[in-house]
Amino acid sequence: MLFGVDTKPNDDWWIGRNEPDIHNLNKLEALMFQGNGYFGIRSTLEEHYMEEKRDMFVLGTFDKYENEATELPNLPDIVNLEIVINGKVMKLNHGSVTQYQRGFNIKNGEMTRSFIWKYDGKAYRFKFWRFVSMARRHLFVSKVEVAPLDDSARIQIRSGIDGQQTNSGTQHLVDGTKRLFNARFIQMQTRTQQSKVKFALTEFHRLCLNGTDLNMNPRLKLNRRQIYADYSVDVDKEQTLTIVKYANIFSSIDKDLKDNVSKDSLAELEQTSQLSYDKLLAETTQAWDEKVWQKSLIKISSHNNKPQIAINFARYQLLANTPQDWRMNIGAKGMTGEGYKGHTFWDTEMFMLPYYILTLPQYAHDLLKYRYLGLVGAKKKAHENGYRGAQYPWEAALPEDAESAPIWGNADIVTGKPMKILSGFIEQHITSDVAFGVMQYLQATGDKTFAHEMGYEIVLQCAKFWASRLEWNSQKNYYEITDVIGPDEYKEHVSNDAYTNYMAHWTMKCGADIIADLRQNDPKDYKRLNEKIGLEELYKALIQRASMLYVPSPNEQLVIPQDDNYLSYKKIDVTKYKNSEKDKEDVSEIFKDFDLKELDKIQVTKQPDVLLLLLLFEDKFSKQIIKDNWDYYEPKTTHDSSLSYSPHAILANDLGLYSKAFEYYEKACQVDLGTNQESSVKGTHIGSLAGIWNVVIEGFGGVRITDKGLRIQPHIPKSWQSLEFSIIWKNTKINIFVSHKYFSVMSKKKIKFICHDHIYQVEPDEKLLIEF
Amino acid sequence: MLFGVDTKPNDDWWIGRNEPDIHNLNKLEALMFQGNGYFGIRSTLEEHYMEEKRDMFVLGTFDKYENEATELPNLPDIVNLEIVINGKVMKLNHGSVTQYQRGFNIKNGEMTRSFIWKYDGKAYRFKFWRFVSMARRHLFVSKVEVAPLDDSARIQIRSGIDGQQTNSGTQHLVDGTKRLFNARFIQMQTRTQQSKVKFALTEFHRLCLNGTDLNMNPRLKLNRRQIYADYSVDVDKEQTLTIVKYANIFSSIDKDLKDNVSKDSLAELEQTSQLSYDKLLAETTQAWDEKVWQKSLIKISSHNNKPQIAINFARYQLLANTPQDWRMNIGAKGMTGEGYKGHTFWDTEMFMLPYYILTLPQYAHDLLKYRYLGLVGAKKKAHENGYRGAQYPWEAALPEDAESAPIWGNADIVTGKPMKILSGFIEQHITSDVAFGVMQYLQATGDKTFAHEMGYEIVLQCAKFWASRLEWNSQKNYYEITDVIGPDEYKEHVSNDAYTNYMAHWTMKCGADIIADLRQNDPKDYKRLNEKIGLEELYKALIQRASMLYVPSPNEQLVIPQDDNYLSYKKIDVTKYKNSEKDKEDVSEIFKDFDLKELDKIQVTKQPDVLLLLLLFEDKFSKQIIKDNWDYYEPKTTHDSSLSYSPHAILANDLGLYSKAFEYYEKACQVDLGTNQESSVKGTHIGSLAGIWNVVIEGFGGVRITDKGLRIQPHIPKSWQSLEFSIIWKNTKINIFVSHKYFSVMSKKKIKFICHDHIYQVEPDEKLLIEF
Repeated sequence: MLFGVDTKPNDDWWIGRNEPDIHNLNKLEALMFQGNGYFGIRSTLEEHYMEEKRDMFVLGTFDKYENEATELPNLPDIVNLEIVINGKVMKLNHGSVTQYQRGFNIKNGEMTRSFIWKYDGKAYRFKFWRFVSMARRHLFVSKVEVAPLDDSARIQIRSGIDGQQTNSGTQHLVDGTKRLFNARFIQMQTRTQQSKVKFALTEFHRLCLNGTDLNMNPRLKLNRRQIYADYSVDVDKEQTLTIVKYANIFSSIDKDLKDNVSKDSLAELEQTSQLSYDKLLAETTQAWDEKVWQKSLIKISSHNNKPQIAINFARYQLLANTPQDWRMNIGAKGMTGEGYKGHTFWDTEMFMLPYYILTLPQYAHDLLKYRYLGLVGAKKKAHENGYRGAQYPWEAALPEDAESAPIWGNADIVTGKPMKILSGFIEQHITSDVAFGVMQYLQATGDKTFAHEMGYEIVLQCAKFWASRLEWNSQKNYYEITDVIGPDEYKEHVSNDAYTNYMAHWTMKCGADIIADLRQNDPKDYKRLNEKIGLEELYKALIQRASMLYVPSPNEQLVIPQDDNYLSYKKIDVTKYKNSEKDKEDVSEIFKDFDLKELDKIQVTKQPDVLLLLLLFEDKFSKQIIKDNWDYYEPKTTHDSSLSYSPHAILANDLGLYSKAFEYYEKACQVDLGTNQESSVKGTHIGSLAGIWNVVIEGFGGVRITDKGLRIQPHIPKSWQSLEFSIIWKNTKINIFVSHKYFSVMSKKKIKFICHDHIYQVEPDEKLLIEF
Repeated sequence: MLFGVDTKPNDDWWIGRNEPDIHNLNKLEALMFQGNGYFGIRSTLEEHYMEEKRDMFVLGTFDKYENEATELPNLPDIVNLEIVINGKVMKLNHGSVTQYQRGFNIKNGEMTRSFIWKYDGKAYRFKFWRFVSMARRHLFVSKVEVAPLDDSARIQIRSGIDGQQTNSGTQHLVDGTKRLFNARFIQMQTRTQQSKVKFALTEFHRLCLNGTDLNMNPRLKLNRRQIYADYSVDVDKEQTLTIVKYANIFSSIDKDLKDNVSKDSLAELEQTSQLSYDKLLAETTQAWDEKVWQKSLIKISSHNNKPQIAINFARYQLLANTPQDWRMNIGAKGMTGEGYKGHTFWDTEMFMLPYYILTLPQYAHDLLKYRYLGLVGAKKKAHENGYRGAQYPWEAALPEDAESAPIWGNADIVTGKPMKILSGFIEQHITSDVAFGVMQYLQATGDKTFAHEMGYEIVLQCAKFWASRLEWNSQKNYYEITDVIGPDEYKEHVSNDAYTNYMAHWTMKCGADIIADLRQNDPKDYKRLNEKIGLEELYKALIQRASMLYVPSPNEQLVIPQDDNYLSYKKIDVTKYKNSEKDKEDVSEIFKDFDLKELDKIQVTKQPDVLLLLLLFEDKFSKQIIKDNWDYYEPKTTHDSSLSYSPHAILANDLGLYSKAFEYYEKACQVDLGTNQESSVKGTHIGSLAGIWNVVIEGFGGVRITDKGLRIQPHIPKSWQSLEFSIIWKNTKINIFVSHKYFSVMSKKKIKFICHDHIYQVEPDEKLLIEF
């Protein structure tokens, strides 16, 4: 498996680069992203380069600039630290650089860098360390060491808060107030233009010479939207100058705000800056350990450690981008770049949620609580579109917002006509996806409280939407769903997209089951929800509509038509597009040959549509149907979405197509970690990273959350010796070990699971071993 | 005289650089500024560099972002043109560069660049040309030639409209509409956020191979706030690929707008793009000639051509930045950078206006008409401050705005406390300066129409302001003016600043004279203005207040106190600060030793205050007084404003201190053209550039507009052989020739002038020759 970053054979937690490469900084900025679920920073270097993209976001602080879509504002940069040696700015492209190494510790998010810089015949040793604290959510700490090796030098440092950043030219923040407190702490206070979210950022610097604190006060440098602390120190040969930079950020929407952003920010930094870099890093390492690594195990024994690095990396990226605050959700690119504006898509429920449900259920709970809060916006969207119930936005920002997708996309590159982005209008399966996520969570956790307080209401409102959304086709005498976009986004305005119709059917069915269950078992809750939603009427509607909704059945060749017309379209050879990567300009190869109107009329699929359906509802379809549809659709799929690989890998593994499964697994790993320097530039692919976990645990580990309970049916790749992992099922930790000969399951409490239609029971603390 | 640019001994119209220098691009961006009084562009290079500052402004299109001061919005960049050769982006810091020359033709604003670029062992010849049209106010044209010298090459071009520019992080424009018209014209439409000024920018590219039009349509590339045209051409060895880029900009405040910005912009470019680069350049050269160069002559015969280049350069910069639209005025840095936000200061009346009055009176008329329109804002400001009449803003943007100066400046660099910018509140001499400008114009042109329609009203409203502004000191039994800032801006909250009090006195006196004159000679106008301003009452007030206003007289040492306390402050040695330039950070040397509070109590002056007064009113003071005050104040002046050199040069010349005069003259020339790479970075100093003209014509040429008429009393520097120039006086062109032995004056009509208190009369077409 080729990676675009260097790795170490004996370190499962390290990615890096052993050569300076200032022409491909953007990818590393995203891969070495530092975040803690509250805020996150792209790992630009301390010194400035032409192509750098300095991005920092605080989750949930959305702002809408004029006619643009709401987005996370790019905040003032706190990473910058310019070092001038004898009047010359240190840059990797000035002078010469040797012994370069840039590394990233996946375990705690610490980035390090070291090299010898030679200029004018004299050498200097540089070392850099920095991290975003997982223990103190507002904190960023950075440490730099400079040592002149050949001669004494005057070393000037400029480090500060640079508010000239924009979201690709869009400025969300006002030019705020710049202050100095206690002669040492620099602060910038600002706020967003439209949403009036306030921010305060404070920095403190400690300079030491050979370990002795110089107790230096900065000289201030103020520019428009910038405040810098300047220092100048004469350093003798072989002395070491150390600069530790403490920085934090507070926002007015913080749940932990005590006074106001300015006071809180200053007070926290006054306290924190008394602690050493090492102490604060140790706290962070421990926090990562307690929050993530100790919660669940994944150990892959393979011919090399790249699979292990990939899964570790995926879990790091997931947690670093996941809010610990139910007013927010995970963006499609998290906070790793401006791509997708920090918006939440179906990626959360359909790709990321399994990881949380099965290893960190409290996170899953909060992510779904966000959707519960989002009922306000979803009802608004349904109402605006003339429907009832809750229609979830295709792109979600604040839970109370309705649709947050941009309305206009780029112009057609040939005609120059602006193209409407239709996903926000007609990519409607998201409403089923949310309900699906809720039910998966309830299945796996048995969290009755959530079900009654929030979960059922979400599902019922989604079902209510679908009941109102269906269209009666009097010719065919059934309900149908026309004019949608399914997961195959190449096709716009399709009728009866297989995935959409099946999911709508499932949602309505599920809603009816909940109503029936409540009526029988929980009259109090039934009464409450009946008053809110009108369950009597809804039940009837759901039963009637679900039974009369057209869901495309397999045809004579056992192929389920992707939509009403797909099978009638012409076929092309897709090989060329399957094997291509998006170019530097983010344009897929296929769009160089066809425009969207043409693709609309070709049997080519962007990402699994029928196949995703078959994966989710494996019990509803025979193995033969699944296989025949695989054979039909897989060759027609371009994987033009990074979300395409993981379902294909899992399905292939299910079908016994093991080398295909591994191939897709590797592709999923390579979406971000691979050699394409252009991928990840605008941010990593969080859904695809979650997909790595999905392939490992749901695919190779064979774990599935089904109606009937937990299913464990593993099969690991040939090149792996074993896979060891743990999941949490109904509040119980289960340890699973898979080799090529057998797999074992162990748990503290009694549990049951299904494997190849057999139900196995595991006694507490007894290892159940099943040979293949 | 050392210049920071290269010059050619035989070309008075060329400045340039013979070596690529990508670390000092910013200064050249301002020096090679291209503009036509409608719009202007900093001369960034076609390809991108780290430190570049892409700025483009259209005069008068002010926008106010939230709590910031109103400013000219930085518009989308149209200069960019990226050239990729065999996959490698051409940059001066990639590969090697030989035969480099970058030149700027002062006569028509054309910038050229040529070099051989070698990469991977293969050489390519590059040539660039471009200009902003003086004949078609919306137009920018750029031409590039690329020729592979060693081997064929694939050449890719990306050129477009890049709206990601900001004013140092502040974004005034909405993300607009990007369109392609007729398969060839790319357009961006946008508007300002607050003032809702609309813009359209259109571009068209013509690609030719060895002179043959390739008739290529672009492939579009659209990013956020960006639209690019992409081209790819295979070019054989020694073939030449030529790209001509036609671009324009229209704004919704344009006086010549026919339909709407989008249609006008497209229609104009459709027409213009049919003309060749050379044809359009020839138009521009002719327009410059007719508008500026033919209107007045300045010919300096000197030991080298730097004085000639400096004056040509000054006149180019002036005209390129001067609106031909009375709704606008000249910014302190014109459109050459973001500095001073496009705002107009006293620089216009006290430094730039003489050039226009004496060579281009129609421009002077329009600049003053702006102040007439500005009465709205000035009255508003007076009213807000509890005064009557018109109090002109220290910083002016739109004429109807009151004060446009920012209220808060940078924080104190030691305490970090934000500092209030007081100029907008208490630097009040601007109101007299405007009146002074009006009277100078009237003296020199005899423009009665302007006097009656606008000029008198301006002066009377200014006088009315002062009458209401004076404070009665009952102890001393006189009126006084406390709490102001004079031209010496080191001193805040001073009482009875000499310049301010004398100018206020002069303004009131002048107002009273106008009233008396109108009453006697123009009863109709008197009646009209009386109804508007209340002349009866005002006259009485002016007579009484002027007679009772304290104006500081020379003391026993003949020194006029700069203010009530100045002479009591301690003295320091100012030498160190006189000879220093502002550092890279734009911090004056003196502020490294003293803060503003300390400077307040030291006999040190930023720029002439008493001396400026003596220069303006030379007839009111004896030569001895002028000399003694020179001896007192000149050594205490740091010249920490670029406006300081020219008045010192002129006064020194008047006093016979010829080497001092020449020294100050050279310093004025070097403010922008000198070797300090940090000056001009934020824009050139238009007032100081006008100062070069002032020294040459008013100083060495001895021309002064006085109460008694035209004064010509020349004395040229030792190193000059002669100075030949023309001025316009009362609509008559006067040619003056000055050598070391004599000077001559010639005119088409009969004129009179004063020289050393003699009145000379020149008969039509007869040369009057006066020997020294």
